[in-house]
Amino acid sequence: MSNFFKDIAPIRYEGTDSDNEFAFRHYDPDEMVMGKRMEDHLRFAVAYWHSFAWEGGDPFGGRSFDRPWFGDGMEAAKLKAEIAFELFAILGQPYFCFHDLDIRPEGASFVESRRNLDEIADIFAARMEQTGTRLLWGTANMFSHRRWMAGAATNPNPDVFAYAAATVKACMDVTHRLRGENYVMWGGREGYETLLNTDLGREAEQAGRFLTKVVEYKYKIGFKGTILIEPKPQEPTKHQYDYDVGTIYGFLKRFGLENEVKLNIEQGHAILAGHSFEHELALAASLGLLGSIDMNRNDYQSGWDTDQFPNNVPEVALAYYEVLKAGGFTTGGTNYDSKLRRQSLDPEDLVLAHVGAMDVCARGLKAAAAMLEDGFLEKARSERYAGWETPQAQAMLDLPLEEIAAQVEAGNLDPQPCSGQQERLENRVNRFL
Amino acid sequence: MSNFFKDIAPIRYEGTDSDNEFAFRHYDPDEMVMGKRMEDHLRFAVAYWHSFAWEGGDPFGGRSFDRPWFGDGMEAAKLKAEIAFELFAILGQPYFCFHDLDIRPEGASFVESRRNLDEIADIFAARMEQTGTRLLWGTANMFSHRRWMAGAATNPNPDVFAYAAATVKACMDVTHRLRGENYVMWGGREGYETLLNTDLGREAEQAGRFLTKVVEYKYKIGFKGTILIEPKPQEPTKHQYDYDVGTIYGFLKRFGLENEVKLNIEQGHAILAGHSFEHELALAASLGLLGSIDMNRNDYQSGWDTDQFPNNVPEVALAYYEVLKAGGFTTGGTNYDSKLRRQSLDPEDLVLAHVGAMDVCARGLKAAAAMLEDGFLEKARSERYAGWETPQAQAMLDLPLEEIAAQVEAGNLDPQPCSGQQERLENRVNRFL
Amino acid sequence: MSNFFKDIAPIRYEGTDSDNEFAFRHYDPDEMVMGKRMEDHLRFAVAYWHSFAWEGGDPFGGRSFDRPWFGDGMEAAKLKAEIAFELFAILGQPYFCFHDLDIRPEGASFVESRRNLDEIADIFAARMEQTGTRLLWGTANMFSHRRWMAGAATNPNPDVFAYAAATVKACMDVTHRLRGENYVMWGGREGYETLLNTDLGREAEQAGRFLTKVVEYKYKIGFKGTILIEPKPQEPTKHQYDYDVGTIYGFLKRFGLENEVKLNIEQGHAILAGHSFEHELALAASLGLLGSIDMNRNDYQSGWDTDQFPNNVPEVALAYYEVLKAGGFTTGGTNYDSKLRRQSLDPEDLVLAHVGAMDVCARGLKAAAAMLEDGFLEKARSERYAGWETPQAQAMLDLPLEEIAAQVEAGNLDPQPCSGQQERLENRVNRFL
Amino acid sequence: MSNFFKDIAPIRYEGTDSDNEFAFRHYDPDEMVMGKRMEDHLRFAVAYWHSFAWEGGDPFGGRSFDRPWFGDGMEAAKLKAEIAFELFAILGQPYFCFHDLDIRPEGASFVESRRNLDEIADIFAARMEQTGTRLLWGTANMFSHRRWMAGAATNPNPDVFAYAAATVKACMDVTHRLRGENYVMWGGREGYETLLNTDLGREAEQAGRFLTKVVEYKYKIGFKGTILIEPKPQEPTKHQYDYDVGTIYGFLKRFGLENEVKLNIEQGHAILAGHSFEHELALAASLGLLGSIDMNRNDYQSGWDTDQFPNNVPEVALAYYEVLKAGGFTTGGTNYDSKLRRQSLDPEDLVLAHVGAMDVCARGLKAAAAMLEDGFLEKARSERYAGWETPQAQAMLDLPLEEIAAQVEAGNLDPQPCSGQQERLENRVNRFL
Repeated sequence: MSNFFKDIAPIRYEGTDSDNEFAFRHYDPDEMVMGKRMEDHLRFAVAYWHSFAWEGGDPFGGRSFDRPWFGDGMEAAKLKAEIAFELFAILGQPYFCFHDLDIRPEGASFVESRRNLDEIADIFAARMEQTGTRLLWGTANMFSHRRWMAGAATNPNPDVFAYAAATVKACMDVTHRLRGENYVMWGGREGYETLLNTDLGREAEQAGRFLTKVVEYKYKIGFKGTILIEPKPQEPTKHQYDYDVGTIYGFLKRFGLENEVKLNIEQGHAILAGHSFEHELALAASLGLLGSIDMNRNDYQSGWDTDQFPNNVPEVALAYYEVLKAGGFTTGGTNYDSKLRRQSLDPEDLVLAHVGAMDVCARGLKAAAAMLEDGFLEKARSERYAGWETPQAQAMLDLPLEEIAAQVEAGNLDPQPCSGQQERLENRVNRFL
Repeated sequence: MSNFFKDIAPIRYEGTDSDNEFAFRHYDPDEMVMGKRMEDHLRFAVAYWHSFAWEGGDPFGGRSFDRPWFGDGMEAAKLKAEIAFELFAILGQPYFCFHDLDIRPEGASFVESRRNLDEIADIFAARMEQTGTRLLWGTANMFSHRRWMAGAATNPNPDVFAYAAATVKACMDVTHRLRGENYVMWGGREGYETLLNTDLGREAEQAGRFLTKVVEYKYKIGFKGTILIEPKPQEPTKHQYDYDVGTIYGFLKRFGLENEVKLNIEQGHAILAGHSFEHELALAASLGLLGSIDMNRNDYQSGWDTDQFPNNVPEVALAYYEVLKAGGFTTGGTNYDSKLRRQSLDPEDLVLAHVGAMDVCARGLKAAAAMLEDGFLEKARSERYAGWETPQAQAMLDLPLEEIAAQVEAGNLDPQPCSGQQERLENRVNRFL
Repeated sequence: MSNFFKDIAPIRYEGTDSDNEFAFRHYDPDEMVMGKRMEDHLRFAVAYWHSFAWEGGDPFGGRSFDRPWFGDGMEAAKLKAEIAFELFAILGQPYFCFHDLDIRPEGASFVESRRNLDEIADIFAARMEQTGTRLLWGTANMFSHRRWMAGAATNPNPDVFAYAAATVKACMDVTHRLRGENYVMWGGREGYETLLNTDLGREAEQAGRFLTKVVEYKYKIGFKGTILIEPKPQEPTKHQYDYDVGTIYGFLKRFGLENEVKLNIEQGHAILAGHSFEHELALAASLGLLGSIDMNRNDYQSGWDTDQFPNNVPEVALAYYEVLKAGGFTTGGTNYDSKLRRQSLDPEDLVLAHVGAMDVCARGLKAAAAMLEDGFLEKARSERYAGWETPQAQAMLDLPLEEIAAQVEAGNLDPQPCSGQQERLENRVNRFL
Repeated sequence: MSNFFKDIAPIRYEGTDSDNEFAFRHYDPDEMVMGKRMEDHLRFAVAYWHSFAWEGGDPFGGRSFDRPWFGDGMEAAKLKAEIAFELFAILGQPYFCFHDLDIRPEGASFVESRRNLDEIADIFAARMEQTGTRLLWGTANMFSHRRWMAGAATNPNPDVFAYAAATVKACMDVTHRLRGENYVMWGGREGYETLLNTDLGREAEQAGRFLTKVVEYKYKIGFKGTILIEPKPQEPTKHQYDYDVGTIYGFLKRFGLENEVKLNIEQGHAILAGHSFEHELALAASLGLLGSIDMNRNDYQSGWDTDQFPNNVPEVALAYYEVLKAGGFTTGGTNYDSKLRRQSLDPEDLVLAHVGAMDVCARGLKAAAAMLEDGFLEKARSERYAGWETPQAQAMLDLPLEEIAAQVEAGNLDPQPCSGQQERLENRVNRFL
C-alpha cells in the first residue's frame, strides 16, 4: 500500500443520519431498486484520466496538483496504477475506464508505446483479479499528442489514419484482454479549426471507413462488448463531427452502422451542444442508441467543458429516469468523467468528490425509480397521446394528403388545444426529489 | 398605385461613385459573374411575412409600425398585396416568398381560410403575370395560431395532424398554381417545451409519415419544385426536432427521403445551433441537401432569432463561396428573411434595408466568385489532402485494422504534423473582401 | 365571486404525506424558521403581468390563453382585478406587484390613462382592505407602448422623457396610496438596438437625472418604501444599461445614489448576464444594495427570458442562503415574476404553478436556514481567510508596495497553496437539499 | 541573427496590387490619416506571450509548436529574446508587450526570479536601443503558477498578497526602466471557482487596497505611463471580478481611483462578457477610461478565449471609429494579443499572421477615419438628439417630477416615435468598408 490516501478507510454506507464525511449517506450497493441491486444499476466507473492523469492545469495555468506518480517513465505509471486501485478499493468501485495515454508513458516508437500499454495491462489484470474491479471501457487518446492535431481518422495525412488504426487496434486488444464491457471512441480532433482548409465530405468518408474497420475488428477478435461513440459539439476543435446524438445517428445510418454502434452520452457535452442531458438520453433511447453515460456536470455558464462531479440531484434524477425507462444499462454504466477543481489539492478531496457523486447518483436513481414505479409521468404521457390510439387516427397515417384534407373540409374540423400541464407535472416530479 | 412609397423611384445600379442612397452601388442584375447574370445567381426573394405581415412587436412591446394595410379583413390583405408588388417593382425583385397566414386573413373555418388564400392567389397571379416577379417558395404558417401550440404534424392530437395535412395541401396547391420553385417546411412548433409530457420517438414517427405524404403529393400534382426543410434548433420551442443540417440528414435517411427533400438553410438558425452559416452550407452540400438560403443575419450575442438584414460582406462572401462551389442555386435562391428593426418606422427604411442587403450580397457573390476563379483555396485544400491520392493510401481504406497496424509497426511509422496555414489562408481570403 | 377558478378551495398546508395536488406540502406560513414565520421570510408576491395580463403569446405565436377578462376597456380591467384577488385568496398570498399597464386600459390621453389607473387603484384599495393582501411594489410599464421604443428616460426625444416623468409620478402616487413597500424601475428600453445611432454617455446622464428626480419625489410625498432598480443585460434591446449588479453600482455611485436605491434581482436576468443568481445576490449584499428578488427560473439554454416558475430546490436554496445571510428581506420579498408555459391553458395550471413555486421556495428557505444554523459554510469561509486576521496581515494593507516587497525578499517568502475544498463543501451542502 | 525566420526579409508596403504574401497591402506606416502617421495612430505591439511563450497547447493537447527557444533556463530565454526582436524587425513593429513569466525562467526563489527578469531586461534595453522598438506595456503573470490558483491580490492567504505586491513592484520597476508607456493588470485569478468558499466583499476590499498601492508606487518612482486594468468576465475562473467596463468603473469609483486608472479593452473579453467590442470602447470613452486595446478576435461560438488574429475589417473599423472619436490613443496602442492556431506550425505562419492583422487594422483605421471625416454618423446622432438642445428641454432636467407631470397633463403631450434608421446607417457605414 502506498501512503497516498493515508488512513482513509473504505467508504461504507451509514445512512442519512451519519455525520461522517467519509461515508455514503445514500449509496448502499446492496439496496434493491426496482428488483436490482443499486450497484448493478449504477455500474460506477472511475475515469483514470481525470482522477490520475490530469495535473490540474487549465489554459491559463499549469500543474496545481502534487502527486507522487507524476512523471514520465514506467515507474511512475506503475505507482499511478497502484494508487488508482487503492482508490477503487476505498470507494468499493465496481468499474474503471482509461485511455492508453492515461496509463502508460508514450514510447519512442509505436511499438514501445504498445509494449508499455501491455505491461501496465498486466498489472491491471492482476489487480482486477485480486479486487474484482472490472473495466467498463477502454479507449485511445488520439487528441493530446501533436500528431493528432489535425485529426486521427479524419486527418489529411493518411499516415496518421494508419497510426490511428494501429492505436485503436492496440487499445481494443487490451480492452478485450481485460474483459472490458465496451470500447469507446471520442473524436476530440475529428473536426476542424477552420473550414477554409477542410474538406468535410472527405473527412466524413474517412471516419465512416475507419469506424467500419473497428466494428469488423471487434467481430474478428470476438470482443463481446459494445462499440460506443461519444458526441461532443466542439472543444478543442472549433467544430467536432460527432456533434450530438442526432448528428451521429445520421452518420451511422449513412455507413450502415446504426445497429453496430451505440453512444456514450455525456452531460457536459449535451449542454455544450445546446441540449439537456435528458434530451440526448431520450433521443438516443428512441433511436436504439443508448449505451453508456458520462455523468459529469457542466457549468451552464462556462462555455467550455468543466467536467465537474455531479451534484444536482434533480438533474441526475431526470437522467436516470430516461435510463431506467429505456430498460437500464446493459453493457454501459455511469462513468463519472469528472475532475476535481484545480484548487482541490488534497487526497481527501479526490475521495470525497467521488463519495459525493455516488450519493448524488444514488439519490437520483432512487427518485427516478420511484417516479417510474408511481407511473404518473407515463400515465400523463399516454393520456396526452391517447387520441392517436383510435383506429381512425392510425388509419390516417396511411392516407394521402388530399384525402385527409377532404375529411377536414367535410367535417369542418376545428381542433382546440388543451393544456400541456407542464407546471403540474413539474410539481409532481418535485415530490420525488 | 398606393401612395405608401410616395415618390421612391425604381432602384437602379449607379456604381460605387454614386452618393444616392436609393441606388445600387454593387448589385447590377445584368453583370456577368462566372458566366451567369448576377440576378440569376442570387435569385433574390422578398419575405412577405417580415416585410409586410410583421407589425414591429417583440416579447416586451406591441406594434410599432403604422401601415395602411394592417387590419383583419380581405380588403386589408388586398391592399397589402398591392403594396408588396409595388416594393417588388421598386427593387426590381425577381422573387418573393410567403406563408398562407401572411397573405390572407384567417377564416371562420378551414374552408373559408382556404378560399381567402385562393382569392389572394388570384391577385398574385395577375400581378406576377404583369410584372414578371416569380414565387421562390410558398409555405404554411403552422406555428402562430393557438391550434398549433403543441405542434402540427407532431401534435399529440391527431385532429391537428389532419388540419396540418389539409393546410399543407392547400399551400402546395397555391404554390403549384403560382409556379413556385420550391415548397418549404419550417416546423417552429415541431418540438417540445418540456420532455416531461413529450414522446419524442412517437412524434418523430408522425413527422416522418407526414413528410412522406408531402413528397407523394408533390408527385401526384406534378409539382416540379423542390421540397425544402428549414432547420432551426429552438425558439419558439425549447427544442425543435429539425435542429440542424446533421440532424435532418439523419431524419431523412431514417424515412428514406434523403433524395426527395433538400434544405433551406438560414444564417440565423445556423448561428443559434452553434454552427457557422458556411458550415451548414458546406455540410448540406456534401450530403447533397443544399437547396436554398435565408440570408438574414443574427446578432451573435442575442440569444434569439434577430433576423436582421445582412450587412457583413466577409460573412456573406464565405456563404456564397459554398453555394458557388456546390454549383450555385438550381431551384433555390436568396430569401432575405430579414425584418426591419422595430424602430425603423418609415417606408424609406423598408426600401433601403433591401437595397443595402442586395448590395452586400452582390459584393459577397463577386468576392466568392473571384476566390473560386483564383482557385487558391481549392488548391490549398487539394495539396493538404494530396497524400490520400496515392494508390497505397486508397488501398488502406480497404484494409482491415490489423493489417494497417502491422504496417505501422513494420515501418516504424511516426507521422509528423504540418502547418494548417489558417492565418495564411485568411490573409488570402481578405484580399478579396 | 367569478366562476373562473370554479371550486378550487383555498390551498392549505397538508405536509409531505398529502397526495393532494391542491395543497402545500412544504409551505406552512406559520412555521417558524430562524425565529420568524415562514410567510414573513418569504413575503411572496404574485406578478400581475404574467399571471393576468400576459396572453400566452411569443415571437412566433399569438394569444393561447382564453381568459374572460381579456379585452380593452375598464370592464375587462375590473373583472381582471376581481379574479386576481380571487387567486390571491386561494393562495393565501400576502403580496402582489403590478405595472400600470397590467391593471388599467391605456386611455386616449395621459390624463385618461391616469384616471383609469386611479379607478382601478380604488378597487385594489377596497379589496386589499377586505383581504389583507398587500402591495409589494408598483412600477410603470415604459416599454410596451411604441412611444417607448427608443427608451423612456434615455429617449432622444425630451417629450418622451417628460411623459416618462409623468408616468412614474402617477405610478409612485398609486403605489404610495396603496402602501406599497417598494417602487421598482426596470428599463427594458433604456439601452439601444444599435450603437450607430446612440450616444450612450448622454443617455446615461439622462438616466441619472431621472433617477435623482424619482428619489427626490419619494421624499416629497413621504413614501417610506424602497426605490429598486432591476438589472437586465438585454432583451428586448440589444444592450440594456442596467446590465447587472456591478454595472448599476457604478451608475449609482456616479450619481451619488448608492444609499438611496437598492436592487430587485431576478434569477433569469442574472443568468442572461452570465452570472449565477447567488452571485448577483451576494454581490448586491456586499455593496449594500440587496433589496428584493424575482424568483423566476430561466432556462439556461434558451437565450431569452423564459420566466418559468421556480422548480429546482438546490438553486433556490443557494439564493435564499444569500438573502438570509444578509439579514433577510426588509421591504423586499419574493416576487415570482413567473409565467405559465403558453400551453398551460387551464385555471388549475395557474393555481398549481404558484403552489409548486411556493413549496419549492419553502424547501429552499428551510434548507438555507438549516445551513446557516449549522454554520459549516461560514466556518469554512472563516478558516479560509483566517490568515488575514493577524495584526501583521492587517498592517500589510497599509504598507506601500516596496516595503511589502522588501519583506518578501528578506523572508524568502514562498507561499504554498492549500485546497479550496469545493467538492467537500458541495457534499455538505447536498446534505441539506 | 538566428536562422529561425530564415530568409524572410523585412515586410514592406507594396499596395493592393502586390501579389506578395510577405508584403503589406494596406499598412503603410507613413501614410497620413487624419493628420497623423498611420503608425502613430495604430501603435502596434506584439504580444510576447502568445507569439513566443505559448507552446500550442490547449485543454486537450500539449505542445504543438517546435521552437528552438523552448526550454527552462536563461539560455533559452535569451534565444527567445533574440528571435523576438528579429520578428519585431521583420514586421517594423514599433512596440511590444510582455509578462514577467514570458521572458524569464521562474527562479528557485523570488529573488532569483527577479534577477532573471532584470537580466533579460538588460538584453531588451540594448535591443530596444539598437532597433527603436519600444515597450507599450509590461505586466505580471499572476495566474499561471500554482501559488496564484486562488487569486493574487484577492487571495485568502495574505502571503500570496505579499508575493503579488513584490511581483508587481518588480514588473513596474522593469517597465519603468524600459520606458514602458503603460502598466497593465489582468486578474485572471482574481475571482472565484465557487461562491461557497468565497467572500467576495472581502476580496474586493483587498483588490481595492492593492490597486491603491500600485497607483501610489507609480507616483513614487515617477512612472509617467498609465495604469491599465483589463476586463474579462471569466476563464480561467468561473467568475472574474473585473467583469467588464461597467463593473470596473464601479470598482474604481468605490476606491476613488477613477481618475488614476484606465482600461485595456480586449475584443475577445468584451465578446465573452456579452458585449460588442465597440460597446466596451464607447462606454469606456464616455467614462473617461479608454486606455488601450487588445485587438484579437474571438470566435463568437467558442465559449472560451480564442485569441485569434483580427481578420474582419468591418468589426475592426467600428472599433477604431470609437478610438478615433475619443481622440485616438495617448499612451495606449494596439496590442494584437493574438495567438496562432495551434496547427500553424511554421515560422512563416507567425510572420504572416501579424502581416494580415496589420493590414486588417490599417483598413479598419482608414475606414474609421473616412467615416469620421465624412461625419454622417455624428450628424445623424446630433439630429436624433436635437430636441434636447432646446432651452426648455435642458431646463426640464432640473425640474421636479411633479412639475414635468403637470406640463404633460396641461399640454396633453402625446410624443410620437420616429425612425431610428438603423439599416440606413448600416448602409452608409458599408460604403466605407
